[in-house]
Amino acid sequence: SLVILCHKLQESMLSSASSFRNYRGVLNWCVVMLVLSNARLFLENLLRYGILVDPIQVVSLFLKDPYSWPAACLVIGILGVCIDVHVLGSISEKVGLLIYIFNLTVILCFPMVVVLKLPSITPVGGAFTLGVYTILFLKLYSYKDVNRWCRVRTQVKARSLSRSLSCPSSPSASSCMQSHVSYPGNLSLRDMYYFVFAPTLCYELNFPRSESIRMGFLLRRLFEMVGNCTLLYSVKPVFILQEMDYSRMTERLLRLAVPNHLIWLIFFYCFFHSSMNFVAELLRFGDREFYRDWWNSETITYFWQNWNIPVHKWCLRHFYKPLLRRGAGKLLSQSAVFFASAFFHEYLVSVPLRMFRLWAFMGMMAQLPLAWFVAKFLRGNYGNAAVWLSLIIGQPIAVLMYVHDYYVTHCQDDPTITEAL
Amino acid sequence: SLVILCHKLQESMLSSASSFRNYRGVLNWCVVMLVLSNARLFLENLLRYGILVDPIQVVSLFLKDPYSWPAACLVIGILGVCIDVHVLGSISEKVGLLIYIFNLTVILCFPMVVVLKLPSITPVGGAFTLGVYTILFLKLYSYKDVNRWCRVRTQVKARSLSRSLSCPSSPSASSCMQSHVSYPGNLSLRDMYYFVFAPTLCYELNFPRSESIRMGFLLRRLFEMVGNCTLLYSVKPVFILQEMDYSRMTERLLRLAVPNHLIWLIFFYCFFHSSMNFVAELLRFGDREFYRDWWNSETITYFWQNWNIPVHKWCLRHFYKPLLRRGAGKLLSQSAVFFASAFFHEYLVSVPLRMFRLWAFMGMMAQLPLAWFVAKFLRGNYGNAAVWLSLIIGQPIAVLMYVHDYYVTHCQDDPTITEAL
Repeated sequence: SLVILCHKLQESMLSSASSFRNYRGVLNWCVVMLVLSNARLFLENLLRYGILVDPIQVVSLFLKDPYSWPAACLVIGILGVCIDVHVLGSISEKVGLLIYIFNLTVILCFPMVVVLKLPSITPVGGAFTLGVYTILFLKLYSYKDVNRWCRVRTQVKARSLSRSLSCPSSPSASSCMQSHVSYPGNLSLRDMYYFVFAPTLCYELNFPRSESIRMGFLLRRLFEMVGNCTLLYSVKPVFILQEMDYSRMTERLLRLAVPNHLIWLIFFYCFFHSSMNFVAELLRFGDREFYRDWWNSETITYFWQNWNIPVHKWCLRHFYKPLLRRGAGKLLSQSAVFFASAFFHEYLVSVPLRMFRLWAFMGMMAQLPLAWFVAKFLRGNYGNAAVWLSLIIGQPIAVLMYVHDYYVTHCQDDPTITEAL
Repeated sequence: SLVILCHKLQESMLSSASSFRNYRGVLNWCVVMLVLSNARLFLENLLRYGILVDPIQVVSLFLKDPYSWPAACLVIGILGVCIDVHVLGSISEKVGLLIYIFNLTVILCFPMVVVLKLPSITPVGGAFTLGVYTILFLKLYSYKDVNRWCRVRTQVKARSLSRSLSCPSSPSASSCMQSHVSYPGNLSLRDMYYFVFAPTLCYELNFPRSESIRMGFLLRRLFEMVGNCTLLYSVKPVFILQEMDYSRMTERLLRLAVPNHLIWLIFFYCFFHSSMNFVAELLRFGDREFYRDWWNSETITYFWQNWNIPVHKWCLRHFYKPLLRRGAGKLLSQSAVFFASAFFHEYLVSVPLRMFRLWAFMGMMAQLPLAWFVAKFLRGNYGNAAVWLSLIIGQPIAVLMYVHDYYVTHCQDDPTITEAL
């Protein structure tokens, strides 16, 4: 009877009705196809240039003539600036807050002014510098908040302790961990610099730490970083800008969209997976959730909440929830977060290009009606396809706008660049 | 305290150490990219040709002059041949077996002879016809086996019944289903033709049936079939065969491999998912497992066991297990299954091309050492990447061999075809 019966009622695995969702192999397929279709260029680049950026050469070049590398100077300069902030304690809360506000404003404005005034800084160098300063800004903001929360808590504890002296301070669940640090003990240079280099934007007194540094893991991430950088050089977006007529715009957009999207994906993997995991492994930083499964997102909102976890966590902890605690409405707080995000996008793009066009800002703002539309009308795989389309098509529209404007302002009279484009 | 703690020990989702495996979105990405990168051609084809094959036109063309379509004639002719097999019962087991052997041999040899002798049959038409006849061969083989098993069981039952008349025949678990059919009751034309059209190769007296025909599901599958056929026309493999020097072979192989692989993937989806689900939905056939998750396969063996479930099930039920029951060793039986599979691959390729080169046979046979190598030396994602590579590179090597030989024998003297290639 068992031999004679051999069918049972079930759906195909690829049907949306089936609950099967394991497509790890498809991801591997994408990697194999990407490497294979660029194999010739990839091998050529690797053979010709070796590891793309020779670190010793860069350092020696920098040491010889540091002032022709202003972007790098700015990045290194900042590390000294932020020491002053941990000497709080002997001054009052209000004075400390003022110093913080001054410091944070300087961190945000100083590089902007330098990038705008120094013409020797390239757009890429400028964007990199501003990115580093923005990260530092967010980190210091979190550092200030958490230390303030700690002070408030110790004050509350001290008050409740004076009321009932018989009961000793109850040990919290986390205090049973080995080498657990509590409030004033964390104010050290060592602790602060660990936070500055750790791949997170949210300060915490006791970060979860991994057991040990796995050399195999470290080497694989390093190999991925080198491989991805080599791959990036073989994916070249096609910018055809000579005659910018709007009739052939659609075709051009598509020709730009796919390489641009591939570059973004490779950048995502290289930065959010390889580099961050590399740094985390080096620092034995335990929390490796730098992104969640945004590739499955069926709404625009889910994508924005999951593709960049460090920033999302920071926004939630230091912007959205404090706003809610102060009595702001949910919709108002959400819009405020989006507004701040749009501001930083614009800051990171406009300043290095020295063009204020608000394309990035508008691109971020356009996400709001789009999110509403997708959530309202599309479900499941169709919603997911819509999110992918908005990524593939939406991004290059903004990029095309900036490239077009940059071309018009900078290169129109220069025949050599026109030809190169 | 909850606000201050916001990190926990965890791995990144893309790390192989994490247990996260849901990449449904990556599959959607592949579809979006495939459609988008062929969007222009896709739309052009759809606008120019509409639905690619107009069924009314094909039928009217066929009715006008059926003898110039010998491939189609062969396919239709067979449906009459297989009626005779269900009249068993009045003749002895041995005579029945002889009739079966004769019928099965005819089914396999008759179309082969016709395809080889009639020059008006194209390679594609020939491969299609032989495919249909091979399916019919496998189905009839299963039909014969299952009916024989049923006769053996009823004889055993009758004997045990005559020994203990007090106990009535115990109702099996499956007999409580509505409209359950038992052995001689299944020998009807209606039942047989249902099996011939059902998307399975293994006969069963009571197939699981789905509740009803879902029109939305049916239409989506139909839309997918049309879309995939249109997509197939926009992916054109590059055959450069004029000068076949072996030094530039590798580059050519890569340029052939990617489009060839895409065609295979689209074919897989179109045939194993869209078409089979379409037919199953029409016939309310319940078992939709036409493939399993071969995209995750980390060994070559797993791929061969899971990409084509109807054939795999048939091999297991009617070839591998009977061999084991007759006392053959495990390794011998496995090799025999592989040998039979290699034979049918060769049969389906060599006969329509009218060239006997054994490339397909050797390609199948080369899987054995490859499977050993992958299972021995590669694990996890590396094994998976190796399986993908063998698919992407292995197939086009065999295809290139046949195309090269076909070109040498048929087109070398014909300048028009040389130019078209």
